[in-house]
Amino acid sequence: MADKVTITDVARVAGVSRQTVSNTLNSPEVVREATRRHVLEVIEQLGYRANQAARQMRTGRSRLIAIRIDPGGDGIAGSVLDRFLHGLTESAAQAGYRILLYTAPDDHSEIATFEDLLGSYEPDAFVLTGTHHGDVRTSWLLERRLPFVAFGRPWSEMPDARHPWVDVDGAAGTEAATRRLLAAGHRRVGFIGWPPGSGVGDDRRAGWARTLAEHGMDAGGLSRAGEDAIANGESAARDLLADGVTALVCASDSLALGALNVAGPDVAVVGFDDTPVAGAVGLTSVHQPLGQAAAACVKLLARALDSTEPPTTHVLLQPSLTVRRSA
Amino acid sequence: MADKVTITDVARVAGVSRQTVSNTLNSPEVVREATRRHVLEVIEQLGYRANQAARQMRTGRSRLIAIRIDPGGDGIAGSVLDRFLHGLTESAAQAGYRILLYTAPDDHSEIATFEDLLGSYEPDAFVLTGTHHGDVRTSWLLERRLPFVAFGRPWSEMPDARHPWVDVDGAAGTEAATRRLLAAGHRRVGFIGWPPGSGVGDDRRAGWARTLAEHGMDAGGLSRAGEDAIANGESAARDLLADGVTALVCASDSLALGALNVAGPDVAVVGFDDTPVAGAVGLTSVHQPLGQAAAACVKLLARALDSTEPPTTHVLLQPSLTVRRSA
Repeated sequence: MADKVTITDVARVAGVSRQTVSNTLNSPEVVREATRRHVLEVIEQLGYRANQAARQMRTGRSRLIAIRIDPGGDGIAGSVLDRFLHGLTESAAQAGYRILLYTAPDDHSEIATFEDLLGSYEPDAFVLTGTHHGDVRTSWLLERRLPFVAFGRPWSEMPDARHPWVDVDGAAGTEAATRRLLAAGHRRVGFIGWPPGSGVGDDRRAGWARTLAEHGMDAGGLSRAGEDAIANGESAARDLLADGVTALVCASDSLALGALNVAGPDVAVVGFDDTPVAGAVGLTSVHQPLGQAAAACVKLLARALDSTEPPTTHVLLQPSLTVRRSA
Repeated sequence: MADKVTITDVARVAGVSRQTVSNTLNSPEVVREATRRHVLEVIEQLGYRANQAARQMRTGRSRLIAIRIDPGGDGIAGSVLDRFLHGLTESAAQAGYRILLYTAPDDHSEIATFEDLLGSYEPDAFVLTGTHHGDVRTSWLLERRLPFVAFGRPWSEMPDARHPWVDVDGAAGTEAATRRLLAAGHRRVGFIGWPPGSGVGDDRRAGWARTLAEHGMDAGGLSRAGEDAIANGESAARDLLADGVTALVCASDSLALGALNVAGPDVAVVGFDDTPVAGAVGLTSVHQPLGQAAAACVKLLARALDSTEPPTTHVLLQPSLTVRRSA
């Protein structure tokens, strides 16, 4: 049922080559006046509109930015990237770009998808999410000098990991949470996070630990770790509560929900990411400015695309605390 | 920092026109053998890959499917479309298409965005979400014979609303929920839904009402309505509980969460959409097969794109009940 008018239709009806149609639109000075006028009449008559394909042929720009979309696990943490994606789509549109989606189960599949996309849709740039230690995607893109921005800082001290990135200061978020709990009078503030080794998780733990240290408190024995699941939050909280902890800072809303399930009303709990679940159950949680992060990504990309030097700029945004009844 | 090789680079290095490069790739029979061999050598040497733009110029197909992404409100119901979007991206990739995102605050902005996209990226097709009574988007697309599929059935009896659509049978979902509650011995089963007039909401209410009728029960006075928010679920549940209701079927997880907040442990509550929040709080909820729905949309679109007749096929999928501790 496609009845879109293509450049081929215009060429056929006008009795000229497609190149002449293209020249009429893009380089009118090389087309004879009479031909040009005739082609423009046919364009008008058929309702043809110079399209992105023609513009891309001319400029070498697709005006597409590609990003991965994830299945979202239990869907609690997944909502963070969904909100980021919405912001990115809006900011990109304002800058004259559109968002192209792809899925990839792991880094190597994602690199294969980069190659596939570059050979077909030719996105002008990529937005990487879920950066981690030894991220092979960044080195792959850097080696090929392909424009990209990471939402998430480079977690490895790689000498060549110089690329634009945008991130939210997770440690500042858990610091704010810990300060609030100390100000409320709690003296044994525990932390429930992920197993050591993840950049994001270690950073969130560090904010809690350094705040206790600044208050002359010993963090020793007050931290537990587990994969990001409600059940792990429950068992870690049980363990810490048995040790006399009265308040809990958690690396995610999933872990915090588990803590809430086993904590009595006097125990304060703070989550991380301010997901819809946090709003639904009254959980105080660290909020990331995802719309701002998305806008910053588009801004850095637009700069990278208009520059001949590899840009190394980065933006570290500050989170805030959304206070509800849990703390 | 873009160093992508374009058709212009190949033409310059080879000393031929871009049209000759294009012909070499797409219509080699019209290019002299020596020229063709020379251009192919330059293509090899520069690492140029025939790209989507060239293919689009040739075929009139962009291999792009456009869909709107929403802000998601309280984020609870939003997760449904996010899961659908992930499935759509995967199914589209398997069929050789990629997903292009846009945002639009209302129907008329969305139509303006259709025009903008058609004049630039030229998506091959659109996927509409959030269909409703008197949906002007469908008539706009139908009038222009543009290929699209709606995730959501046409709710108006418009004579021209003949287009492919995929939906999940919401009434069958609330029917299954109501049957379960009746089988558990409940005799006063209430319904909390949205204000009358929304196709989706009325359909979900109808499934509950017809199941009570089938069991010879009177639904009169057992239904309450409010906008989709936790607080409205709370007040509606309070009201129905005061009327002796012992079980509640809700049109959304947001309303069901409100009901759970005010219901005692003996009151059974069923939500709709099986969102992450439902999993987190142990809410029994109607589950929509979103991956299947996305795959069906891609299948109908692929058929529409390869046919000259406007297809009117539709797919109505059956939901299931995800049983947790609330009912």
